[in-house]
Amino acid sequence: MISEAMTQQILDAVDAAFDEQLAATAELVATPSLRAGEEAAQDLIEERLRGLGLDVDRWSIGSPELEAHPGYGPATVDYGTMTNVVGTAIPAQDTGRSVILNGHIDVVPEGPEAQWARSPWDAEIHDGWMYGRGAGDMKAGLIANLFAFDAIRRAGLALTGRVHIQSVVEEECTGNGSLAALLRGYRADAVIIPEPEEDALVRANVGVIWFTVRVSGQPTHPREMETGFNAIDAAYQVISELRVLEERWNQEKDQYPYFEDLAHPINLNIGGIQGGDWPSSVPAWCEMRVRVALYPGVSADSAWAQIEACLAAAGTRGAVPFDVVGTRDGFYAEGYVLEPGSDAELLLEETHRAAFGRELTSFTTPGYLDGRVFVGYADIPTLVYGPVSENIHGFDERVSVESVRNCTKSIALFLASWCGVTAAD
Amino acid sequence: MISEAMTQQILDAVDAAFDEQLAATAELVATPSLRAGEEAAQDLIEERLRGLGLDVDRWSIGSPELEAHPGYGPATVDYGTMTNVVGTAIPAQDTGRSVILNGHIDVVPEGPEAQWARSPWDAEIHDGWMYGRGAGDMKAGLIANLFAFDAIRRAGLALTGRVHIQSVVEEECTGNGSLAALLRGYRADAVIIPEPEEDALVRANVGVIWFTVRVSGQPTHPREMETGFNAIDAAYQVISELRVLEERWNQEKDQYPYFEDLAHPINLNIGGIQGGDWPSSVPAWCEMRVRVALYPGVSADSAWAQIEACLAAAGTRGAVPFDVVGTRDGFYAEGYVLEPGSDAELLLEETHRAAFGRELTSFTTPGYLDGRVFVGYADIPTLVYGPVSENIHGFDERVSVESVRNCTKSIALFLASWCGVTAAD
Repeated sequence: MISEAMTQQILDAVDAAFDEQLAATAELVATPSLRAGEEAAQDLIEERLRGLGLDVDRWSIGSPELEAHPGYGPATVDYGTMTNVVGTAIPAQDTGRSVILNGHIDVVPEGPEAQWARSPWDAEIHDGWMYGRGAGDMKAGLIANLFAFDAIRRAGLALTGRVHIQSVVEEECTGNGSLAALLRGYRADAVIIPEPEEDALVRANVGVIWFTVRVSGQPTHPREMETGFNAIDAAYQVISELRVLEERWNQEKDQYPYFEDLAHPINLNIGGIQGGDWPSSVPAWCEMRVRVALYPGVSADSAWAQIEACLAAAGTRGAVPFDVVGTRDGFYAEGYVLEPGSDAELLLEETHRAAFGRELTSFTTPGYLDGRVFVGYADIPTLVYGPVSENIHGFDERVSVESVRNCTKSIALFLASWCGVTAAD
Repeated sequence: MISEAMTQQILDAVDAAFDEQLAATAELVATPSLRAGEEAAQDLIEERLRGLGLDVDRWSIGSPELEAHPGYGPATVDYGTMTNVVGTAIPAQDTGRSVILNGHIDVVPEGPEAQWARSPWDAEIHDGWMYGRGAGDMKAGLIANLFAFDAIRRAGLALTGRVHIQSVVEEECTGNGSLAALLRGYRADAVIIPEPEEDALVRANVGVIWFTVRVSGQPTHPREMETGFNAIDAAYQVISELRVLEERWNQEKDQYPYFEDLAHPINLNIGGIQGGDWPSSVPAWCEMRVRVALYPGVSADSAWAQIEACLAAAGTRGAVPFDVVGTRDGFYAEGYVLEPGSDAELLLEETHRAAFGRELTSFTTPGYLDGRVFVGYADIPTLVYGPVSENIHGFDERVSVESVRNCTKSIALFLASWCGVTAAD
């Protein structure tokens, strides 16, 4: 750790710029960045990175290498106009360790706005919380990366290690954005990703597979409904069958370190459904969009094979056999464990104590994280660690303002100690 | 009945023009007329009616009177550009009884075309069947009305009673098309509607209500899925509750004459479903489009009140209460019984025997029919009677060519005897 004096300088620098940081966060929240619509928000990030004096690399993420990578999730959007933005600072005196500060720019759909207490894009602050879609997941963390980096300069110091600040797309659906950044060649001695993680460190997390299930058969007029096939009823049969698989996987939790104590680590979510063409026609088809988790150590191929077997069986269970087709259309991502004891984690324990005045805790989260890219494919210790939030992916998403402040401090202190600092010129 | 000689002349006239009739039917099938897209098909009908020498009345069906009528079904399309077409022939010597020949121009969606053996719009004939969306339901019948009418002239005869040939919209969703024709002032001593009814007469049929059910609640990230509300699961709870209502209504069938012998007269069809915004967000909303039947004698208001009570109860059944809102968005139609013994029915028994060489049978159908407009609101005996078909509202819909021929003969003979004929000038 750096000296107490330097520590205080950095903490003060974060406080001094914190109103500005909140304004920058609000501006980013107020710039919607739904999938395939991230460019305006990436423009803001690029501008800020340039303002911080970083060299900016911005590129469309699609490539044959990406599609050939085992961690690639099949895309259903055009990557031709979807860019990652990375700002790089290589110090003149490059003697310290390097770090990647990663965050994702994309947010999930806001859902029916009438169910929000206020607009999801206003980014208003009330009673210590900033509200809005993406406020927690993870625009507060993305902006925190920039302000943590800048706090070093504001404190009159200069880092002596290389820093890459990454703003990636596709974290909410495929994980292809961080994967594309890795394939672009970005490597470092540690990665920090300030996802909304309750001021704690993620020790382990699940992988995720996305797929669409299409059920189809022969429909009829409702006047002869009892002789026909109803794809919506059949879809619910398929859901039941998938729930059996889900429970089987949950029952295996004792085999997976860090997952034994979770009540229900494997969640299978039917996130979307659509079927039928006409109220008075028995529906011939129904499609469901499904998200399911898998433990670290379970390959995506193995999980997918079990899912396909489950779907095939579902089509044969009822009185009338029907077609069930599963298609992968997003995440095909494996989980990871952050092995304890890395230098990066040991340092974070110290900077967390300095920023929050309490011990760092770690936990297992049953959601997807881009950490899997850096841990799984580049063996880089990756600290997924970020602010307290509520209702991410729900209505009235919000992030704790004081938590953001302290996370920013912790990250800034990490940067200084990890990369090393000198007095600025 | 008219003389045997005249009968033979008319039967021969139908046969002589039958290839032309099939070509006209095929042309109409090949002109898609999905809801709110009927105008090109109505153009064909208007042209043919004018070709037969009828006076044509064509008007947009929307009106305040229509919307105020108790049999009106709430519309979800713009009636400003949706027209009914009625051709009227008033003979110089107008001494006979009058008739309305009614048919609907609209067809239900074809569904995924890949599940058809051939294009739904080719109208090809194979092995005695004409295939295509609407071939049976009910373009063959609509064109049969025109050719039955024309067969009288071709036979060298002239009708001595008023005829209205109606091509109406909205039969598949609201029944507002025929209702608008009634409100336009069209009345007659009998109505024939050659729906696809297996060469038989409909004795009774159900009413139908359409409604949308929207289920909504508070969603979460799948990582905390067990604490959240899943609208797709909740929708299935609502379906289960509606199925209880459906079975209760079916158990009451003994109270309704002509329905006692049907295995399952009341069918509730979940014809469409849509819900959720994102695979990795627990869905906050789900909408279902529902069609349910009601017995003749049960008012739509009474049925709807029971549906609303069922929906309200469904929202309180689970661990977490949720919002369930039902909205009427189509049929709000009551059923009817064609009381036996009308002159029209007695005559149809004779013309059917002459055309088919066998006795007319009658039956009860658990589907909506525009007959409810004429029977229920104008007390006109209405003969819903038409050809053999298969897979209406399904894939590979088809109508029996020979059945169409014989129905056309039967209707032509009915016209001659009902309205009366003289030798043409």
